[in-house]
Amino acid sequence: MLPPVQHRFIDLIRRKRDGAALNAEELQAVVDAVTHGTAPDYQLSAWLMAVFLRGMTTEERAALTRAMTRSGRVLDLSHLPGGKVDKHSTGGIGDKVSLCLAPAVAACGAFVPMVSGRGLGHTGGTLDQLEAIPGLETRLDADRFVRVLERAGFVMGGQSGEIAPADKKLYALRDVTSTVESVPLIASSIMSKKLAEGISGLVLDVKVGSGAFMKTMEAARELAQALVGIGNGVDVRTTAFLTDMDQPLGLAIGNANETEEALDVLRGAGPSDLVELTTLFGGEMLVLGGAASSLEDGRAKITRSLSDGTAMARMRLMVELQGGDPRVCDGKPLAKAPFAGVVTAARSGVVARFDGEALGRAVIALGGGRNVVDDVVDPGVGIMLRYKRGEAVRAGDVLAEICASSPAHLEAAVARVGAAIAVDDEAPARPLILEVIR
Amino acid sequence: MLPPVQHRFIDLIRRKRDGAALNAEELQAVVDAVTHGTAPDYQLSAWLMAVFLRGMTTEERAALTRAMTRSGRVLDLSHLPGGKVDKHSTGGIGDKVSLCLAPAVAACGAFVPMVSGRGLGHTGGTLDQLEAIPGLETRLDADRFVRVLERAGFVMGGQSGEIAPADKKLYALRDVTSTVESVPLIASSIMSKKLAEGISGLVLDVKVGSGAFMKTMEAARELAQALVGIGNGVDVRTTAFLTDMDQPLGLAIGNANETEEALDVLRGAGPSDLVELTTLFGGEMLVLGGAASSLEDGRAKITRSLSDGTAMARMRLMVELQGGDPRVCDGKPLAKAPFAGVVTAARSGVVARFDGEALGRAVIALGGGRNVVDDVVDPGVGIMLRYKRGEAVRAGDVLAEICASSPAHLEAAVARVGAAIAVDDEAPARPLILEVIR
Repeated sequence: MLPPVQHRFIDLIRRKRDGAALNAEELQAVVDAVTHGTAPDYQLSAWLMAVFLRGMTTEERAALTRAMTRSGRVLDLSHLPGGKVDKHSTGGIGDKVSLCLAPAVAACGAFVPMVSGRGLGHTGGTLDQLEAIPGLETRLDADRFVRVLERAGFVMGGQSGEIAPADKKLYALRDVTSTVESVPLIASSIMSKKLAEGISGLVLDVKVGSGAFMKTMEAARELAQALVGIGNGVDVRTTAFLTDMDQPLGLAIGNANETEEALDVLRGAGPSDLVELTTLFGGEMLVLGGAASSLEDGRAKITRSLSDGTAMARMRLMVELQGGDPRVCDGKPLAKAPFAGVVTAARSGVVARFDGEALGRAVIALGGGRNVVDDVVDPGVGIMLRYKRGEAVRAGDVLAEICASSPAHLEAAVARVGAAIAVDDEAPARPLILEVIR
Repeated sequence: MLPPVQHRFIDLIRRKRDGAALNAEELQAVVDAVTHGTAPDYQLSAWLMAVFLRGMTTEERAALTRAMTRSGRVLDLSHLPGGKVDKHSTGGIGDKVSLCLAPAVAACGAFVPMVSGRGLGHTGGTLDQLEAIPGLETRLDADRFVRVLERAGFVMGGQSGEIAPADKKLYALRDVTSTVESVPLIASSIMSKKLAEGISGLVLDVKVGSGAFMKTMEAARELAQALVGIGNGVDVRTTAFLTDMDQPLGLAIGNANETEEALDVLRGAGPSDLVELTTLFGGEMLVLGGAASSLEDGRAKITRSLSDGTAMARMRLMVELQGGDPRVCDGKPLAKAPFAGVVTAARSGVVARFDGEALGRAVIALGGGRNVVDDVVDPGVGIMLRYKRGEAVRAGDVLAEICASSPAHLEAAVARVGAAIAVDDEAPARPLILEVIR
């Protein structure tokens, strides 16, 4: 083997500054410098800004992703008999698809080693939803992560420090140097963590609209193409769905009530949009994991697992294995905050628009989300909508119910939520599934 | 007075990243953060890269320059009766114009408070030339700097830590983050230091060619326009001359021999190109400083000061006041390195091309220049050319004489210098003064 080429970091900055495409070896050198701390932060941040403004080719993105993945532990799941697949969402309001999806896919014969995140900003996070279940642990070391996966067919844990540490460090630096909103950097960050799960197939849910990070189709499409491009470059079969986030997904927003809504889906019930994404993504994951012959076949299998109780049985197994109270799967209610109030319609008409970001911020203000990573989340607060976009209401009808930890919180949330739901003469029509990129 | 607006540095990065023009208040906030260390280096370097790739408007450059100047001490020379003017060169091979120019301008009635630099890279520096004079001190505190200026009419000192400290810190960071070669940053760095001298007129010598940092007319013109643009924006009357650096200026390269050549000019002799730049720049400085009615009048005055000994008298005064041996003004030779050798012409023809950068590197290799700032310079080594471009030579003629500190150094320099001077059938014609930008 040849000795590694030594790269002066200043030259790596200069080349990217001048618009060159760095090769795999050079990007490995960047990531090595991050991982081992051999380049000072002020050089890394200059490089990040050069990437932000100069962009990256598809090959660069894949090479950066691979290098960041290899900066830490990569799961070896080759001993498990079956495809290993996962889903990632770019985040939206009321998005609890992962909780419905992972047990259903596991019930249909593919493994789902899901490393999830916490909510930050106006969108929620799977780990926060899960932790609404009493006792459930999401900090799993790699051995326990694999044991749960082996037995339940799926597992849901947080990102340990072992996974893609270079990504973690670069992300922290991007956060303080105005270099966050870069498609190549966002996409390789997402993909590097997913790759560490040892998966061979991935479904991406790229949310578009007022409640999403991507407000326009153009922005969402660019990110989706970047993610799929990296997937192709690193030999992970990847499908991206652009889905509507101009209204919340399902009716529940907040942690405990989102988890309960997800459990409803696992009982064969639940709101239709949530069920639709679950069967669509689940069906695609089964195809990518070799457990279904076609998307239709996959969807049918997922639907069956929701109605015949096999998905819920997997959920119960995971909850038990991760230390949670399995009785929640039998309908035992989760904690609710003590003060409840309602938002009513000021006029008759149809529910026309939701300001998703405002709803997300209302949940944060209630204590159900985070402004900064160290904020503690109250699982029992939240918003239950009564209507989806396009449904008719009469003046005085209850549009949403709010659970809060104090009367003052309740009052503020009622005002915020009232302002975030518009009733009008007609509602714009927009399909749930906007585009597919394979 | 309103309290200062607080700027989050991350927003200053973001705005520049997105191509916005920062206003004077925002640029003051950047410079304050540099001066007081309130922004970490990783934020400054991200901002520098954003400036590098997004550029700066004329207004931004002037505002940045002003703020950097005010980060340190600014000389108040209002008590001196007469214009205060200076010249700055972007650096070239054999450039000793400052040593001829400053005493001549002083002799004609304008004050020249010249803060000079040391050589770095392939070009020499005025301070190194001066320090070839035994005893001469260039580290002057501000009080002494002004006292010399008051008595001699000019002064030549190094940049103290009091002058534009923000520029000093930003420059050090640019050097390690591949953000040096940015016209707005180069131009505001140069101008911020000159502004601190308390001058109201400035001549810029922007060198173009193989021995200069700017290799093309386009690059030199861009920098010259940037410098003049800043000058206009900060109320310093500024004239930029683009001058030829495809061959060394004069015949002497190295510190002691360059100083001796400059002293020749002050005796009314010296090579014609050096005399031409001295009278041109000096004439313009007199105009800018209100000591001449026109460029022609100014040139005539400078020429007279060189022939009648008044310029040399000023030189002698400065040397004395700065602790140097004034007998060098009477022809006492400066130190010479002990080993001398020659480069001869391999064929007959005309001297056609000089590789200026190679000649500069040869002087560094001899010990007469610096690769890094801490290198110690040997004033006695150097190269004396015998011919200018276009002059006829015969095979075997001596093209250059070399002084070295050891036979090994001499041998290497003879080879380098031989390769850097081309004799051919004809030589390209190129005027000394290429363009004027006012």
